[in-house]
Amino acid sequence: MNNPRKSLKKEKILTGDRATGQLHLGHFVGSLQQRVKLQHDHEQTILVADLQGLTDNGHNPHKVSSNILNVVADYLAVGIEPLKTTICLQSAIPALSELTMYYSNLVSVARLQRNPTVKSEISAKSFGSSIPTGFLTYPISQAADITAFRATLIPVGEDQLPMIEQTNEIVRKLNHIAQDDILVECRPLLSKVPRLPSSDGKSKMSKSMGNCILLNSSEKGISKAVKSMYTDPNHLSVEDPGQIRGNVVFTYLDAFHPDSVYIDELKVRYQNGGLGDGTTKKILEECLQDILKPIRERREIFMSDKAQLIDILRIGSQKSQEESNQVLNNVKHAFGLNLFN
Amino acid sequence: MNNPRKSLKKEKILTGDRATGQLHLGHFVGSLQQRVKLQHDHEQTILVADLQGLTDNGHNPHKVSSNILNVVADYLAVGIEPLKTTICLQSAIPALSELTMYYSNLVSVARLQRNPTVKSEISAKSFGSSIPTGFLTYPISQAADITAFRATLIPVGEDQLPMIEQTNEIVRKLNHIAQDDILVECRPLLSKVPRLPSSDGKSKMSKSMGNCILLNSSEKGISKAVKSMYTDPNHLSVEDPGQIRGNVVFTYLDAFHPDSVYIDELKVRYQNGGLGDGTTKKILEECLQDILKPIRERREIFMSDKAQLIDILRIGSQKSQEESNQVLNNVKHAFGLNLFN
Repeated sequence: MNNPRKSLKKEKILTGDRATGQLHLGHFVGSLQQRVKLQHDHEQTILVADLQGLTDNGHNPHKVSSNILNVVADYLAVGIEPLKTTICLQSAIPALSELTMYYSNLVSVARLQRNPTVKSEISAKSFGSSIPTGFLTYPISQAADITAFRATLIPVGEDQLPMIEQTNEIVRKLNHIAQDDILVECRPLLSKVPRLPSSDGKSKMSKSMGNCILLNSSEKGISKAVKSMYTDPNHLSVEDPGQIRGNVVFTYLDAFHPDSVYIDELKVRYQNGGLGDGTTKKILEECLQDILKPIRERREIFMSDKAQLIDILRIGSQKSQEESNQVLNNVKHAFGLNLFN
Repeated sequence: MNNPRKSLKKEKILTGDRATGQLHLGHFVGSLQQRVKLQHDHEQTILVADLQGLTDNGHNPHKVSSNILNVVADYLAVGIEPLKTTICLQSAIPALSELTMYYSNLVSVARLQRNPTVKSEISAKSFGSSIPTGFLTYPISQAADITAFRATLIPVGEDQLPMIEQTNEIVRKLNHIAQDDILVECRPLLSKVPRLPSSDGKSKMSKSMGNCILLNSSEKGISKAVKSMYTDPNHLSVEDPGQIRGNVVFTYLDAFHPDSVYIDELKVRYQNGGLGDGTTKKILEECLQDILKPIRERREIFMSDKAQLIDILRIGSQKSQEESNQVLNNVKHAFGLNLFN
């Protein structure tokens, strides 16, 4: 607090992914590209959220453990630089669990049950009457993550705004107990990019559904995925006028093609009739191949040296331990539990 | 597991107290005397449960923080020896919070809500609709405590048996995931001593209610408490036959007087008529003064050297950190999250 350089500091961003699968084009458009940009003028930490991944995979932990290094390799492959962005592992930072314990005394069960994000996630998952406690309480754990890094800017989608709200509620309660601003409130950095649809245009992207293009998809895999992509079911022959709305090929062209003027021309031609799905898919495939080839190649090199990936995570986690222990000490102090400090 | 001396090891006991108040005669009879005995032929750890104390005092943490050293002084004053019993502080052992996070993915919210102990505690407290999350989930945290110390014997009252059951459920789930017996099941050491009534014979003992005799009660305080003790309301004059049942003075004489034959004689005389409450109270007071004088004096000496108390807790907590980190490592290994080990 007495650091005279504070005002010169870059703003702190916390972001991350549940380590439950490889990253795909949805992540690329929705968050990864933004992170690559943000790392230059922000102090960015990316948390590989293995503990959060366990909250609905407690009995299937391999789904989490087997994906940690995959996710790190994905980050590096798209251009996240460990010298600019701290990449760390949630389970390697004890203060995150400790803070969760303290905060859980300040949030009622009813408040968690009212959380719209968790509510809709619970109804989307097939927990039945057996909701894991860790899943219901994960907004508290997220508040621990955000506050432990003193993050003030959190990239989120609209659907995650209740998480920011829950975090700031805890921040205010804690600061009230401490009679001091020991924690900082955060604000959302709302993504302007609409969520990328899955290639079937219907369900959520998921590796197991086979409806998403992973960052390390092979040339053939990309080709196959684009060929099977959902377009306009009423656009039966090339001459027919086609629909753009709900046409996944055009949504992807909007998201990935560098020349938006050209894509607008294509749309007009498609709507007037005279442009076949084979042609639009070919244009999209070329574009995706161009984007994913260097990513796939870089990723392969990173995955071939797992020791280096582990080292990057270890160094990031150590740095994060130091940061988060400071916040934990302040919180323990607020509760009067700093007997040994 | 390969330790050839394992079979020679003393059985491991975990016990403890929420650090929410000084200890009183109820604790003395209910647990402290037993602990003093058990420490000789068991490996005993006593956990000063400050985190658990916060689960219903999140907004009033001083109630917890101000009582930690009080509780340690109480232990030492009654004869618990730090060289025989490890005394440690829950908040100083990060592995306990980390284990809680892992276990919370294996216990459903519905299972917690069904826990009879928590259910009756919730209805006894005035949470209204605002049950703190940490309170609902404390059985998971208790399972973390028990398993972190590999404790197999847990001194409890009947009302806490559901806690043992919950712990063993988690142990079995975890061992199933690990495909190895990395955690050990525990069994209750049921107390045979009935719960000591408060001096008014009605409510639960509580310092704030002024109906209990603290271990450091002054001579005057003890005298006053015994004089106001509930007896037989129909025993109006010395000659009247009196009732033993519900007569707190006789319950205390049973619990504390060394000469049970003498107490049995007194009971006969009281029941026949001819023994006044003044006399029985005088006998009880003398007996309690004898027991509490050395405890009060020893406690005063311990409380005059807080640095020593902190040292005892620090040393016990460090030992406990090492023990619990081993268990945490095994659990992380079971979940495949041992990237840095």
